[in-house]
Amino acid sequence: NETAKAELGRASWKLLHTTLSRFPKKPAKDEREALSSFLYLFARLYPCGECATHFQALLQRYPPQTSSRDAAAQWGCFVHNLVNERLHKPAFDCGAVTEMYKCGC
Amino acid sequence: NETAKAELGRASWKLLHTTLSRFPKKPAKDEREALSSFLYLFARLYPCGECATHFQALLQRYPPQTSSRDAAAQWGCFVHNLVNERLHKPAFDCGAVTEMYKCGC
Ligand SMILES: Cc1cc2nc3c(=O)[nH]c(=O)nc-3n(C[C@H](O)[C@H](O)[C@H](O)COP(=O)(O)OP(=O)(O)OC[C@H]3O[C@@H](n4cnc5c(N)ncnc54)[C@H](O)[C@@H]3O)c2cc1C
Ligand SMILES: Cc1cc2nc3c(=O)[nH]c(=O)nc-3n(C[C@H](O)[C@H](O)[C@H](O)COP(=O)(O)OP(=O)(O)OC[C@H]3O[C@@H](n4cnc5c(N)ncnc54)[C@H](O)[C@@H]3O)c2cc1C
Repeated sequence: NETAKAELGRASWKLLHTTLSRFPKKPAKDEREALSSFLYLFARLYPCGECATHFQALLQRYPPQTSSRDAAAQWGCFVHNLVNERLHKPAFDCGAVTEMYKCGC
Repeated sequence: NETAKAELGRASWKLLHTTLSRFPKKPAKDEREALSSFLYLFARLYPCGECATHFQALLQRYPPQTSSRDAAAQWGCFVHNLVNERLHKPAFDCGAVTEMYKCGC
């Protein structure tokens, strides 16, 4: 069922990018560790097995950038673009990514 | 911005319930720990601060149930219903929750 897989993907990217765009601008060590652990656990538990396997390999090659909000948001945009490329989707312009994902809070 | 907050909520619940509905039926100890850690980190990093604070308190009172897929999915439905109650939304029938959240994989 490709529709369910795509809907789950869209929902998950929304949560991921919004989380990264709200990450502290100057994170403390424990905040950096929390984000990094969250992303590895997300990749491990992600319900689409094929997606999870591929994303785990991406994390190995491109570990999460957690030094600042901008670094984290740009890293998220970059890895999403690698998934886009694999799925023959157009690349996304990462310039405005931090401003784009609002949480309304 | 209430629309952004609601959209983020819908996306996040979709990921959470789908993850719980695909959790192993007989999880190993490390899988149980992974799910539990993921949920606490999710609650910590969730971009809506008011939501995160409230959800962290819920996790304290009702720790994640990780002994099986069904236990996890029912726990997820239960805590979402507590959030629904707080927001004056109708309670959701948890009977069919495991079947409802398909990942298409
Ligand atoms: C971790 C992960 C791994 C996945 N792996 C696979 C897989 O292996 N196979 C598979 O079939 N599907 C996979 N998916 C699903 C896939 O990435 C899409 O979510 C799905 O195909 C729906 O695509 P979409 O075109 O609606 O846009 P999505 O890729 O879901 O993107 C949603 C929206 O985000 C914005 N966006 C697009 N690119 C970026 C970017 N680089 N940075 C920030 N915002 C952006 C756009 O506004 C877009 O409409 C994966 C999803 C996730 C979360
Ligand atoms: C952890 C968390 C905490 C939140 N805290 C707040 C808060 O404090 N204040 C605030 O304003 N908003 C909060 N939100 C957002 C809020 O819960 C809703 O997501 C948002 O208001 C949109 O609501 P909705 O009516 O579209 O349905 P949602 O509650 O988003 O539910 C989406 C869909 O899930 C299904 N569903 C409903 N209940 C259940 C259930 N119990 N089990 C399984 N599936 C169900 C239904 O099909 C529903 O349409 C929070 C979100 C999350 C993820």
